[in-house]
Order: sequence, then structure tokens, then C-alpha cells
Amino acid sequence: MRISQLSARSGVAIPTIKYYLRESLLHQGVQLAATRAEYDESHLRRLRLIRALLEVGKLPVAAIKKVIEAVEDESLPVHDMLGTAHYALSTPVETGQGADWELARDQVEALLAAMDWHVDERAPSRAELAQTLVKLRELGLSTDVTAYARAADTLVVEQEMDTIPFDGPREAAVEAMVLGTVLYGKAFDALRRLAQESESARRLANRAT
Amino acid sequence: MRISQLSARSGVAIPTIKYYLRESLLHQGVQLAATRAEYDESHLRRLRLIRALLEVGKLPVAAIKKVIEAVEDESLPVHDMLGTAHYALSTPVETGQGADWELARDQVEALLAAMDWHVDERAPSRAELAQTLVKLRELGLSTDVTAYARAADTLVVEQEMDTIPFDGPREAAVEAMVLGTVLYGKAFDALRRLAQESESARRLANRAT
Repeated sequence: MRISQLSARSGVAIPTIKYYLRESLLHQGVQLAATRAEYDESHLRRLRLIRALLEVGKLPVAAIKKVIEAVEDESLPVHDMLGTAHYALSTPVETGQGADWELARDQVEALLAAMDWHVDERAPSRAELAQTLVKLRELGLSTDVTAYARAADTLVVEQEMDTIPFDGPREAAVEAMVLGTVLYGKAFDALRRLAQESESARRLANRAT
Repeated sequence: MRISQLSARSGVAIPTIKYYLRESLLHQGVQLAATRAEYDESHLRRLRLIRALLEVGKLPVAAIKKVIEAVEDESLPVHDMLGTAHYALSTPVETGQGADWELARDQVEALLAAMDWHVDERAPSRAELAQTLVKLRELGLSTDVTAYARAADTLVVEQEMDTIPFDGPREAAVEAMVLGTVLYGKAFDALRRLAQESESARRLANRAT
């Protein structure tokens, strides 16, 4: 298809497609003449992935480039490719020093072992969790997050992972992982707040009677 | 206690305390002389709440003012006071029009009914959830979030609500609700990502063998 059709089918404006081509986020089409190139389904898939990373993942272009490189590097195993995108979605956390942080890091280790979760040392979510535990302890709240870990495990194992097409094109797996991570995270957050409001009403109404 | 002691015990700098006094976020102490006022435990509690709203809730000062007004208005039932703070923590969502949005709103209603959750019409989390459902459908992902709703319900009912001291000072209830909502939300998000990484490794390693 021509660039005009690619634009129509993807919903991405032609100047934006040209920008992605210049930035090497989108691979070149087959050049038919000086001003005419032919695009195919792989370009459509790539555009879908770019939009997912940009609009749902809210990643900056530099981070999107890294993810695309991982997608294009066929020698990179699927797990590492997904990891590149997964880590890009995390907010970087500066790990602190001191006894509080050591305690929190030990607690993260213990929890990972208890859950039998195998997670890379460099995973940013380790530091995110440790930071949250430091904050909880500092503020006098319970740092026992076992119930949350169990809930996360059930949702991920029984539901989320099944939505990732591991056997299709690499783009499709990354896209599904990014969309699922971000959107089901948002959904859970909204649902938790709805449950909180309802339960607060229930408990306080019961007390009033 | 004097302002210097209040500063030492709260960890809040004296100029910051004076700023909170001028902005009426912190109630005045008992004036002992033109330049000397006496503060008590209620001021310490209030400073803790302000910091929780500011540092953990990331609320702007205007929103903190509204929450403080709700705390100070003793005629406002506890549930409504908590609701004021709870709603302030949500990102406002512009609700859209059209068939997609209507479908999503109906789905939110159906889910609330199925979960037996009673939630105010104005709750911002309704629109947040509807927006996420619109996005999920648009991107071809499953909009069935029942499993997430059940997990949220269990965590909130069995764990989170018990951490809120409904019988203590109004500040303490708001503080615990804000800290719990934000920090356990962050913890769950990190835990979910750890579970995802582990499960992705497990599935892809199994496939490789």
C-alpha cells in the first residue's frame, strides 16, 4: 500500500509517519520510485506498537527507540525484548542507603522467595517496591504486603499472561504486554477506589445505626 | 509547646509552619504574647496530615485547603470528609460522548451492581474506569475486569479498611486513608510488575525446553 493508505488504515497522519521513518522508529518501505514506496502489514503493526508506547505507555521517543531496537534485534530472546519495554514503563527510583533501605530490600528479597518469583536483579520494580516499603515504615503503616502479592500473582498468572500472543510477530507481543500492563493497572486502581468508597459507606452507615 | 519545638517534633521547618499558618492550613496556636504562641498535639497531627497530602498524595495547596476545610467542618459526616480527600486524589477525567462511552458507562454500572458496591454518582473513579474500558475496547483488549474487581474487593474489605482509625481524631482518619490509598496502590503496582516478569520468564523458559 502507499503512504496515504497506510495513513488511512493506521489513523496516523502522513507527516507523523514521515517523522517516524526519519527517526527510524518505522522501517522503510520498498522504494518503487524516487517518491513512491510500498508499505505492508508489518508497517501497520509497527505503527500500532508506536502508538501504544506513546499514547498508553507515555514513553518519550528516546525510550520508544530502545524498545523498537529490541523488537528488531531478532537475536534477542522474547523474554528480554519484553523486559526492555517493561522496564521502560517503570518510573526510575533512586535507591537509598541506610538501615531503612537495607531492611526494605531484605523484605523484597524475602517476599520474592516466598512467592517463588524469579526476577532480574536490575528490575526497576524491586527498587519501586523497596521505596514504598521504606515510606510505609517511616509513616507507621504496615509493611506486610503479602495479600497484595498474592492478588497480583493470581491476576497475572490466571489472566494477564494469556493475553500476550507469544507466537505472533514480536511487535504484537510487546504491544499486548504494554497495553495490558498500563491499562489493567489503571482499571485496578479505579476499581480499588470504588471498592474503598463503597466499603467506607458501608462501615460508617453501620456505625450510625 | 513553642513553634521551635513543634518544628523539631514534626520535622517541618519553622518558615514552612508559618506559611501553613498564613494559608490557614494549620490552625493558630494560643497566643501567649505578641510574638509567642503555644501549640499542642492537634498541631502536630495537622502537620502530619498536611505532609501526607503534599508528599504522598502530591496534592496542590488549593486541594489541600479543601481537604482541611472538610476536616475542620465537624458537621460533615466522616464518610463525606474522607470522600473529599479521596476524590482529590483522583486525576479528573473528561467523560466522552458517543456509543463507546455509553457502553462503557453501562458496563461500570453493571459491575457496581454485580459487586454490590454503592458509589456516589459523582465519584471520579467511575469516569476513570469508563475511560479505561473505552480504551481497552478501542485497542481490541478484553474489557472483562471482573477478576480485578474481585481482587480489589478482597483487599479493601479484608485489609485496607481496618487500617483507618474511624474513632480517632478526624485528621488521623484522613491521613490513614490517603497514605493507604496511595502507598498500597504503588506497592500493588510494583508487585504486579514483579509477578509479570517472573511469569513471563517461567512461560518462555518452559517453551524453550
